[in-house]
Amino acid sequence: MIKKVLIANRGEIAVRIIRACKELGVKTVAVFSEADSDSLHVRLADEAYCIGPTASAQSYLNFTNIMSVATLTEVDAIHPGYGFLAENAAFAEICEECNITFIGPSPEAISQMGTKDVARTTMKNAGVPVVPGSEGIISTIEEGVTTAEEIGYPVIIKATAGGGGKGIRVAKDEASLRKGISITQEEAKANFGNPGVYLEKYIEDFRHVEIQVMADKHGNVIHLGERDCTIQRRLQKLVEETPSPALTEEVRKEMGEASVRAAQAVNYVGAGTIEFIFDHKNNKFYFMEMNTRIQVEHPVTEMVTGIDLIKEQILVASGEKLSYTQDEVTFKGWSIECRINAENPDKNFMPSPGTITMYLPPGGFGVRVDSSVFTGYKIPPYYDSMIAKLITYADTREEAIRKMRRALSEFVVEGVDTTIPFHLRLFNHEVFVGGDFNTKFLEQYSLEPEKEE
Amino acid sequence: MIKKVLIANRGEIAVRIIRACKELGVKTVAVFSEADSDSLHVRLADEAYCIGPTASAQSYLNFTNIMSVATLTEVDAIHPGYGFLAENAAFAEICEECNITFIGPSPEAISQMGTKDVARTTMKNAGVPVVPGSEGIISTIEEGVTTAEEIGYPVIIKATAGGGGKGIRVAKDEASLRKGISITQEEAKANFGNPGVYLEKYIEDFRHVEIQVMADKHGNVIHLGERDCTIQRRLQKLVEETPSPALTEEVRKEMGEASVRAAQAVNYVGAGTIEFIFDHKNNKFYFMEMNTRIQVEHPVTEMVTGIDLIKEQILVASGEKLSYTQDEVTFKGWSIECRINAENPDKNFMPSPGTITMYLPPGGFGVRVDSSVFTGYKIPPYYDSMIAKLITYADTREEAIRKMRRALSEFVVEGVDTTIPFHLRLFNHEVFVGGDFNTKFLEQYSLEPEKEE
Repeated sequence: MIKKVLIANRGEIAVRIIRACKELGVKTVAVFSEADSDSLHVRLADEAYCIGPTASAQSYLNFTNIMSVATLTEVDAIHPGYGFLAENAAFAEICEECNITFIGPSPEAISQMGTKDVARTTMKNAGVPVVPGSEGIISTIEEGVTTAEEIGYPVIIKATAGGGGKGIRVAKDEASLRKGISITQEEAKANFGNPGVYLEKYIEDFRHVEIQVMADKHGNVIHLGERDCTIQRRLQKLVEETPSPALTEEVRKEMGEASVRAAQAVNYVGAGTIEFIFDHKNNKFYFMEMNTRIQVEHPVTEMVTGIDLIKEQILVASGEKLSYTQDEVTFKGWSIECRINAENPDKNFMPSPGTITMYLPPGGFGVRVDSSVFTGYKIPPYYDSMIAKLITYADTREEAIRKMRRALSEFVVEGVDTTIPFHLRLFNHEVFVGGDFNTKFLEQYSLEPEKEE
Repeated sequence: MIKKVLIANRGEIAVRIIRACKELGVKTVAVFSEADSDSLHVRLADEAYCIGPTASAQSYLNFTNIMSVATLTEVDAIHPGYGFLAENAAFAEICEECNITFIGPSPEAISQMGTKDVARTTMKNAGVPVVPGSEGIISTIEEGVTTAEEIGYPVIIKATAGGGGKGIRVAKDEASLRKGISITQEEAKANFGNPGVYLEKYIEDFRHVEIQVMADKHGNVIHLGERDCTIQRRLQKLVEETPSPALTEEVRKEMGEASVRAAQAVNYVGAGTIEFIFDHKNNKFYFMEMNTRIQVEHPVTEMVTGIDLIKEQILVASGEKLSYTQDEVTFKGWSIECRINAENPDKNFMPSPGTITMYLPPGGFGVRVDSSVFTGYKIPPYYDSMIAKLITYADTREEAIRKMRRALSEFVVEGVDTTIPFHLRLFNHEVFVGGDFNTKFLEQYSLEPEKEE
């Protein structure tokens, strides 16, 4: 069993991991950049070490310094959280070489899922539906045109090495496709050092639905149901919920089973997420990508299953069998998460770093807060702007929404702007409450504040 | 349906009730004493009115002022919380006369359960086990001596109008009984205006186990399982949990059924608790008293049943049927509550009022905090010293204990002394963790802080 873990991350996820470790009786080592010396994760861990200056590249992405601390403090394992090194196959490999358990899948699984066209082919071979598209990388523009004619316009051109909304372009006709392939290839070469692009049919009206999977080193793979993350702004998730209000029992079952096959296809170990494009009008789903790490939105799954995903990650990384068989996993109630960011929703979500002069999270029945901030905390401008995840849990979606409104309305964060007013408007919007919307919700509906008379 | 509620209370329970109202879409009116003008319940309610000076008798117990605000603000109902007017039959009667719903049982039920020997006789007649004792009030000392010889020493002399640990005396032999009856009668006359006393066998080695009941106005009564409140200091509960680690399935079932009979016997409506002396060595339980109100420790029941007791109170007060039948009530997991008080556990639990200079409650999976304090809040010295209820929830008792240790260790309250260090010692004490103890736990085991070398 793992006895001591280094957490190669910061913010709420570092705190989340420390909490799970404490409950398991596992010792913790925090690392921090010079900007984070007063952070909560530093205070809560058993030990904490500075690993470099403010810039992530020199601290949270600094292999050498992180591995030095790991060796020095004699940890058994490193938990990468999400972001930073979480999906870095090279880092996972170094951990392996140093005989330190990387709490996550193998470097091979990370690479295989990180290369988009390889992931696509792997999934297709595993019987997971993929969006109609090219067979791997297209070698010539002519091949692209032929493929596009087969699958029909509009199509989307994707760089195989792309990600985070970069290296992606939509083409509505042959002319824009020809131009688009060239531009995307050049961009991809410049940005990712790999010019390879492939084509997929562009599905405009869809919901983002993903499945949480968990696998051990003994070949057991289970899924823990779906999360619906359709409310996004520029591909950034803002709200996540489970179950999805859009899934039939049949689709839910198929999607879960497809996800287990997906994980098995890459000998997956640990927590992972298979993201799907859900064509809700036609009840069809297509593989989008796999995230080979714990996700920001994992708490909603914990609320409805009662399973602590971080503890489970640590247990399976220790070589334990999964604590649950698929049949033992039960789903109860409804859970929703809001990402509360230090951003001004009325100024185009402009980041609002600075000192939180007053912080009082909501409490009570069915309210969970995962955060790392406190009264007097200074939000540095260098990292992401998330200050808290507010999660509600109730028997039904309607009750979870009412609880969220209540919790948002009593959440006090003073000194910086936050997205709390945005979420309040969203949770009072009849289309959101109705549950029938797609990923374009925020383009389609104005969530401007009501004008005072 | 009730549309607007006045909350005749303060502190965390006022906040708790406001939260439930908000989630139900019910408007709220807070009342406050001059000492409480900056309180959280005042800020969270839709409206708030000062009802008098600091002293409870002139504010939170001030019938006239509270009824004036209720009339002025046109509320449909008054929620009394716990303490103050919660078990005041006269107040419930005034509400009735003013056509304002008292969220609680009828004045008759309150009176019947508030007079100890009447409650005892009512319970006995309803087939609820009572401790062997006298048939009602004893009329002469000789009658007392005869009864004591029948039931065996030691016996306990109780004033029928007593409560809160007052008007109670143990007698180990005839001499101390004769003296004790006289003294208790005099005391009771002086303190409660009623000299009536009765006798019960004194059970020394017991656990405090209670059953939550809920009843509607249509004659439906259900129970929601037990709470074990054995960890007490001078009859004040410090920790509560459900399920009880000491109950067999058989006793649990019998106790639940007896409690439903108890509630039925007084035509009970709303949330109530039947408290039992549980003789854990002999697996026998005896009626102690009924609390005709919501209790401090209600959240642990909510965690394992998923039922919001305050919402249910409001719904049944509105005339709705219970949301659940007995068969629909399910129990899952384990929940424990710690009462975090502003008291110094190393100075005999001396109250520690003052300004909280830093407040950061714990968060994360399975942690609930019900509180009304915040950074900068000044705890007044005039009321109770509870600052927060910390509740954990997990699959098993062991996990709920581990989670509590984790949550206690990260709970930040600066500026005043708190009982957090005491709870940490308790949750690390092997006898507490083992689960086999009685109400004398704190007399029996030292929970002194470890001495530094």
